[in-house]
Amino acid sequence: MKNTAVLLLSTPIPLARKGAVAAITQFLVTRNGSILHADDHVDSSRGMFLSRLEWDLDGFDIPISSFEEHFRPLAEQYRINYHLAPTDYRPKVVILVSGYDHCLADLLYRYSTGELECYVVMIVSNHSKAQPLAEFHGVPFHLLTKPQDKRESEREMLELIGQDVDLIVLARYMQILSPEFVGQYLLRIINVHHSFLPAFVGAKPYHQAFERGVKLIGATSHYVTATLDEGPIIEQDVVRVSHRDTVDDMLRKGRDLEKIVLARAVRWHLENRILVYQNKTVVFS
Amino acid sequence: MKNTAVLLLSTPIPLARKGAVAAITQFLVTRNGSILHADDHVDSSRGMFLSRLEWDLDGFDIPISSFEEHFRPLAEQYRINYHLAPTDYRPKVVILVSGYDHCLADLLYRYSTGELECYVVMIVSNHSKAQPLAEFHGVPFHLLTKPQDKRESEREMLELIGQDVDLIVLARYMQILSPEFVGQYLLRIINVHHSFLPAFVGAKPYHQAFERGVKLIGATSHYVTATLDEGPIIEQDVVRVSHRDTVDDMLRKGRDLEKIVLARAVRWHLENRILVYQNKTVVFS
Amino acid sequence: MKNTAVLLLSTPIPLARKGAVAAITQFLVTRNGSILHADDHVDSSRGMFLSRLEWDLDGFDIPISSFEEHFRPLAEQYRINYHLAPTDYRPKVVILVSGYDHCLADLLYRYSTGELECYVVMIVSNHSKAQPLAEFHGVPFHLLTKPQDKRESEREMLELIGQDVDLIVLARYMQILSPEFVGQYLLRIINVHHSFLPAFVGAKPYHQAFERGVKLIGATSHYVTATLDEGPIIEQDVVRVSHRDTVDDMLRKGRDLEKIVLARAVRWHLENRILVYQNKTVVFS
Amino acid sequence: MKNTAVLLLSTPIPLARKGAVAAITQFLVTRNGSILHADDHVDSSRGMFLSRLEWDLDGFDIPISSFEEHFRPLAEQYRINYHLAPTDYRPKVVILVSGYDHCLADLLYRYSTGELECYVVMIVSNHSKAQPLAEFHGVPFHLLTKPQDKRESEREMLELIGQDVDLIVLARYMQILSPEFVGQYLLRIINVHHSFLPAFVGAKPYHQAFERGVKLIGATSHYVTATLDEGPIIEQDVVRVSHRDTVDDMLRKGRDLEKIVLARAVRWHLENRILVYQNKTVVFS
Repeated sequence: MKNTAVLLLSTPIPLARKGAVAAITQFLVTRNGSILHADDHVDSSRGMFLSRLEWDLDGFDIPISSFEEHFRPLAEQYRINYHLAPTDYRPKVVILVSGYDHCLADLLYRYSTGELECYVVMIVSNHSKAQPLAEFHGVPFHLLTKPQDKRESEREMLELIGQDVDLIVLARYMQILSPEFVGQYLLRIINVHHSFLPAFVGAKPYHQAFERGVKLIGATSHYVTATLDEGPIIEQDVVRVSHRDTVDDMLRKGRDLEKIVLARAVRWHLENRILVYQNKTVVFS
Repeated sequence: MKNTAVLLLSTPIPLARKGAVAAITQFLVTRNGSILHADDHVDSSRGMFLSRLEWDLDGFDIPISSFEEHFRPLAEQYRINYHLAPTDYRPKVVILVSGYDHCLADLLYRYSTGELECYVVMIVSNHSKAQPLAEFHGVPFHLLTKPQDKRESEREMLELIGQDVDLIVLARYMQILSPEFVGQYLLRIINVHHSFLPAFVGAKPYHQAFERGVKLIGATSHYVTATLDEGPIIEQDVVRVSHRDTVDDMLRKGRDLEKIVLARAVRWHLENRILVYQNKTVVFS
Repeated sequence: MKNTAVLLLSTPIPLARKGAVAAITQFLVTRNGSILHADDHVDSSRGMFLSRLEWDLDGFDIPISSFEEHFRPLAEQYRINYHLAPTDYRPKVVILVSGYDHCLADLLYRYSTGELECYVVMIVSNHSKAQPLAEFHGVPFHLLTKPQDKRESEREMLELIGQDVDLIVLARYMQILSPEFVGQYLLRIINVHHSFLPAFVGAKPYHQAFERGVKLIGATSHYVTATLDEGPIIEQDVVRVSHRDTVDDMLRKGRDLEKIVLARAVRWHLENRILVYQNKTVVFS
Repeated sequence: MKNTAVLLLSTPIPLARKGAVAAITQFLVTRNGSILHADDHVDSSRGMFLSRLEWDLDGFDIPISSFEEHFRPLAEQYRINYHLAPTDYRPKVVILVSGYDHCLADLLYRYSTGELECYVVMIVSNHSKAQPLAEFHGVPFHLLTKPQDKRESEREMLELIGQDVDLIVLARYMQILSPEFVGQYLLRIINVHHSFLPAFVGAKPYHQAFERGVKLIGATSHYVTATLDEGPIIEQDVVRVSHRDTVDDMLRKGRDLEKIVLARAVRWHLENRILVYQNKTVVFS
């Protein structure tokens, strides 16, 4: 387990140039923090400087628990928005799933091998299908008591999950979440949509793709916001199809895409590699 | 130059199975036509059997000019739609272009090396920019006399081009053609749209893509129909972008996509590899 | 379950043109066999005509069990090599695995959902690691009794597996099989090699790739022959890497490639879509 | 034209962490140099910290011509290897070409549109074929006087090109350059090899690829070193092929790859985005 910390931050470009960048570096170096990785991004069109810093906590002069207290004056001076994450913290993850369990099976396998460093604290579903898989991986499984009642199900999930969660993964969860539910977990819900967004929003995207006769199909992982399929895109990928591919072939090819774009998004979120601003993501991968 | 002929055909599946396929093969073989390539496709969802046959004309018992006369009874019996193309015929191509000439330059280079077997009979433009390029390749160049007047320009083009043309390529021609004009050249106009259709139809797709924060950008070549950006898709491709890519970077990356998806579509059309039905393409590539 | 049959065949081009193709079609049609799919390939450089035919057995005049008896005269007349496969037959598959179980987990998941239509009759391993996974999927698991003794292990496997097997999958089985063992299962063993062959044959290909500084890494599925990593290639795919990727990142990215290229190869083999000749494959996918 | 400067630098990791990074930032900021882009890379396996910095020269306190004088003490203190490049300098480029001119045509087109910011000072060839293209783009063309005599040709090129050149592009130049010639232009010669290196080194890679039956073909751009096809790889890309593709199809598909991987490498070199160490490249793209 690495003993490092990650700082994700953003600041207006003029302040970044007038010393913010140098001040942050200085802040870490003077406290004996060896910078292991630094990734910057300057978005001129939106006037923002964004950065991901990872440094060694071995020998760092101040305990990470008091970092914010020391860093706050600097953050205020340069109007820095930031998120601090010690890498020895294992984020808590909840997975929601319905009848299609390929993404769930894929995530649990990656979890079992340590590729995804987190605790999957529970799986919640409106179908019983995924229960044996959950048990095989030793993860608690909760079947929603009234799966037909959407409002009641959300109430039940809110209670089950609570606020002590770092990420909710919709692993092909086939219910549209209400803005109220989403609002409780802002930028903490990742969904996979089985199309190359913004093409084919809504239901049955592979059928739509088949009808339109596209030559590539895609999948998209994104943060969930109040507006369906409109949240910040984290990752996308595509695969070639031809006239020989039926809708079933597209479904099959698409499953492999969905697994991969969702797994990448989850890993990047867990490793604090994603910055969101103005409905877009910066992924420091 | 090959001495072969290509037959593109479609027939309802029940008739295909009740002898049409065997009868067509028989028709060619009994006249000493060696089948060089046969590509079939059965579209169960639409009930159609589609095929591309290429056979050797050396030793073929009947002259290709009288093929239709001999083949017609069979076509009628089995309700076969077909298109016959001797491969020693060089199709006549017209290219329309505006200010962006990267697709034009690419097509003309491929034309000059023989990769595209055709006659580019003229280039028509509403800008003078492409004239030196046209002259370098020895292709007549026509500048529209009233580029601002869309209706007048279409009249002028109709007169210039006439009906003796096999393909009109819109190589980033930035005017929307009227349904009347398109109707004159049904399935003979190929356009390149600078997005992964159906995402980002209409104007400035790279700007739209930048705003939406997609992680891949694409380009699409398609036959032009009366409805903008809705014609049968021939080819698509994508390239990865990240938060580091500005709109200018997307424009640059996109140019390479546009050149390639347009060139492929043009070549497949010239080689009689595309069958269109119900707004979708079958590409026997 | 489909009630169809597949015929994979090859014949010298001159014979194909002098009637073989027509005769085969005729053979099926006159016995009321509706051809569902026909895929041809003419390899001029090697003088071979190759084809995959699938036809409906409903209403087919002769029982599939007596097909060969009726077809043999035609096959002899036109020197047709062929392989017949009724699609209601579920092939028997054995999977060999060592310590890395990502390909195994992937194959078993696809097996459990019906994506791979076969019987996985057993899993054989020189490690005990995969046992719980095998049990979860209800597949018999055999741990080799003397995993260090290669010769003895092969003898043990030969006895376990016998000859009643249609495919042996090396799902990251980290022992090189002897030519004698391979000779028992000609074109019935599929391996996945974790590089883009022929680059980086042999051991530790990701380490080799890292040292060489390549910008893409790949994986290859192929039939196993007596010469290591030299068998006919079935499928390959690649993923982009950069200077940011460590060997561990390459291993992680590579696992996703390996799973996909192996799963595709297995499916194509099971669906009788692969023809091998002269150390190359034709995949009618 | 941007008024900025780029600094490419490397330093041992311990020194980077013990203040080098902070000191460099400090150096720029205290002289009113606004950092526009900063890209770092830590290669733990080789113990190197690498960075690309771009900053605004408007308002920078010292003239860029005296940068080195001021920066030297710092560089010595922290053992920093560095390369400074003002972005208003247009690098001088020489292109070598033989009979295949697709890469040349592609580069000249990009040059004509400003995509490649440089001066193409001359084209040198052992064939006359490219002369009209060179003239069309207004670039001096030199035909080697004794193209058969390799030693004499290199002598002639050395004289023609001299040392005032920033990049020599081998745009499918089909002669192997001697170590002596290469030694004159260390890390200033970029070649495109028409395979996915290290697969298929040497002659006729597409023919080799066809024989081996690979399912993807590739192209590689790299710096030229004394050992053939062994120099640091800059960029690679691949395209799918199938059994339907003849060697000619591979040549055609490969041309599009070659153009793109070479153009990317040239652009990155011109924009000072490439750091080479220990036969590998870091591309800050």
